[in-house]
Amino acid sequence: MTIDFKKTALDYHEFPTPGKIGIELSKPAETAAHLSLAYSPGVAEPVREIARDPENAYRFTAKGNLVAVISNGSAILGLGNLGPLASKPVMEGKALLFKRFAGINAVDIEVTAESPAAFIDTVVRIADTFGGINLEDIKAPDCFEIEQLLIEQCSIPVFHDDQHGTAIVTAAGMLNALEIQGKRLEEARIVCLGAGAAATACMRLLISLGARKDNLYMIDSRGVIHSGRDGLNRYKQEFVNDGGARTLLEAMQGADVFLGLSGANLLPPEALLAMAPRPIVFACSNPDPEIDPELAKATRQDLILATGRSDYPNQVNNVLGFPFIFRGALDVRARRVDEAMKIAAVEALRQLAKEPAPAEVLKAFAIDRLQFGPDYILPKPMDARLLGAVAGAVAKAAVESGVARLPYPAHYPL
Amino acid sequence: MTIDFKKTALDYHEFPTPGKIGIELSKPAETAAHLSLAYSPGVAEPVREIARDPENAYRFTAKGNLVAVISNGSAILGLGNLGPLASKPVMEGKALLFKRFAGINAVDIEVTAESPAAFIDTVVRIADTFGGINLEDIKAPDCFEIEQLLIEQCSIPVFHDDQHGTAIVTAAGMLNALEIQGKRLEEARIVCLGAGAAATACMRLLISLGARKDNLYMIDSRGVIHSGRDGLNRYKQEFVNDGGARTLLEAMQGADVFLGLSGANLLPPEALLAMAPRPIVFACSNPDPEIDPELAKATRQDLILATGRSDYPNQVNNVLGFPFIFRGALDVRARRVDEAMKIAAVEALRQLAKEPAPAEVLKAFAIDRLQFGPDYILPKPMDARLLGAVAGAVAKAAVESGVARLPYPAHYPL
Repeated sequence: MTIDFKKTALDYHEFPTPGKIGIELSKPAETAAHLSLAYSPGVAEPVREIARDPENAYRFTAKGNLVAVISNGSAILGLGNLGPLASKPVMEGKALLFKRFAGINAVDIEVTAESPAAFIDTVVRIADTFGGINLEDIKAPDCFEIEQLLIEQCSIPVFHDDQHGTAIVTAAGMLNALEIQGKRLEEARIVCLGAGAAATACMRLLISLGARKDNLYMIDSRGVIHSGRDGLNRYKQEFVNDGGARTLLEAMQGADVFLGLSGANLLPPEALLAMAPRPIVFACSNPDPEIDPELAKATRQDLILATGRSDYPNQVNNVLGFPFIFRGALDVRARRVDEAMKIAAVEALRQLAKEPAPAEVLKAFAIDRLQFGPDYILPKPMDARLLGAVAGAVAKAAVESGVARLPYPAHYPL
Repeated sequence: MTIDFKKTALDYHEFPTPGKIGIELSKPAETAAHLSLAYSPGVAEPVREIARDPENAYRFTAKGNLVAVISNGSAILGLGNLGPLASKPVMEGKALLFKRFAGINAVDIEVTAESPAAFIDTVVRIADTFGGINLEDIKAPDCFEIEQLLIEQCSIPVFHDDQHGTAIVTAAGMLNALEIQGKRLEEARIVCLGAGAAATACMRLLISLGARKDNLYMIDSRGVIHSGRDGLNRYKQEFVNDGGARTLLEAMQGADVFLGLSGANLLPPEALLAMAPRPIVFACSNPDPEIDPELAKATRQDLILATGRSDYPNQVNNVLGFPFIFRGALDVRARRVDEAMKIAAVEALRQLAKEPAPAEVLKAFAIDRLQFGPDYILPKPMDARLLGAVAGAVAKAAVESGVARLPYPAHYPL
């Protein structure tokens, strides 16, 4: 990052007012009459209605369109465990994206908790304030237990975006790339470099979509995860593979898919050369991928490459998912985000990439066309069709799977 | 309340969107370049700066102008313990008033806690998210312990508005009324009907301003608080008076001041008749005062009457205080709201009532003038001068008492 970019980024956050979000009044508050409705004595009426039936909170308060973006700052971006307060710009950024892309009011909450149990207690106690909870930047393996227990204890959707948002967008791009390369997920040999929250969720979702466990190699800082290793936590045990490979290079022999959720420049060209014909490489480490995109393209002309970067084709970006997934979940008042809703989001993203991109997207990229193919496997974040397509698919899936408490919305598609 | 008013109040809360507040973006988020600043990769820069020095959160995030309005719903308005969720319309209303009157971003947090200790733990763990905490509608005596421990454990101002906001506005009006009636607080005989959070805080502040403890009678549902009573909690013990009076009527013999923070129609005309010449009656129960204003005026022509109602003169309304107190406290980054800041707010309110009301206030009330006197002892909530006067006085007091971490703001007076 250049010094200029650093200054621009800091100035953007500081001026003219610190931060990125604020409160707006959604009701008039100009006259004494307005105030007598908004506050005493008028406010007593919705209070009584909610005391009578808690569901009325969705009618008379902002709850139904309000998401909390919650973190303990234990795994911020690629920067690590910098604590709750340092995560605040990221959480505010997420809130900005919720509003910008899906019209959802989101507020950030940074939690200073001495243990996962304390974090869970805190979130459970404030959960009724919100219509949904987006967990963010919580280190593995704590994040798995935290999310699971919160899902069990809260009556609103709880979604750890680093896991499921990443998995949904990755799976959509991956399935499209496999289709383009003429391969099938059921047969694909997959190497995952990284074993954190995102990697675990990606592998779980790919398995749920048809990938075979014995075709998956997951690799952490100590090499391939296999049953002979000591001290594997139960989340890593889920992905042991005793097929014989122990190193990245061994695992990559004949691999069809590489998924990197690890760190900069960890994929050497020789490993890429060892892959099967027409390989797929998702080098998603941010801001610097597991392999330099130019080097990857120079090494293998037959590959499909995706990264987390906006300045190359095939950006894998969570903003393609979470705003619209929550939009759909909130609009049918889903009790949780279940597997069917995630898969519906994957399918909606896949399908949208197969349709010609709209004019405003082409204009934003100053190109003539974006056509489904090796350099266009996922929609672009600025594609306004995402809202209708993904939220609609998620809402429909929630209604069909029975976790929705409202019918498919009359005002859909958005 | 009429059926029409009830419907109007519910419709105001429900349509066109449920609730009263939402999120607005305070930074542009239209282009890919904006998003690369607001989120990855640009957001990493403020994250690093805050990790380096937590004070930078005030530069790069919304923290410094963000207040949490927090309740457990255990004492909502005059409605009682209806639980956290039912308090949400009130907390959103408070957030609306913060924004409307002082430009402060405020978010409501409803806490479901099994004990005061659990409530405190929860608030402490999320406190770093905010620049200040406004506690609301928490029942006595829990509220005293909760506020005290939160003040000790949080590095930002924690302010229980039902206590101190009420006390500040009440004291300002009371001192002005005493002045108009030609009486001195140091000699005034005061009867307080009610012994909850607001009553306790009002009596404490009046004592801090010069009232004599042996001149105060506090009365709860069992009568005058005196040392012969069993089971008095330590907060009530603070106000024992063994002067002999046991009932409201006895206490009211020769009283100069009546403060009602109790319930509708609990002050009979004969008690009012028993008061000293030129009495002061603050009948603040909402929506129905301790005595009907018409009845009070008909009973004693020499009284000054204040209520919580906007449709009579001398409305005692917390909105005269909390938005501006927090504005001043945030703008000098006060560590807490100390006694000097509260007294400064009292004095600023008193002084403002002595100046002629501005044209827009007269227009709002469709009258020719508002002049300091029996029917104008406090400024009106719509008086735009409140912001500058109260915030300025509070900020100055914080700087002088040493709880401010920034100097008196260069952009003051507002």
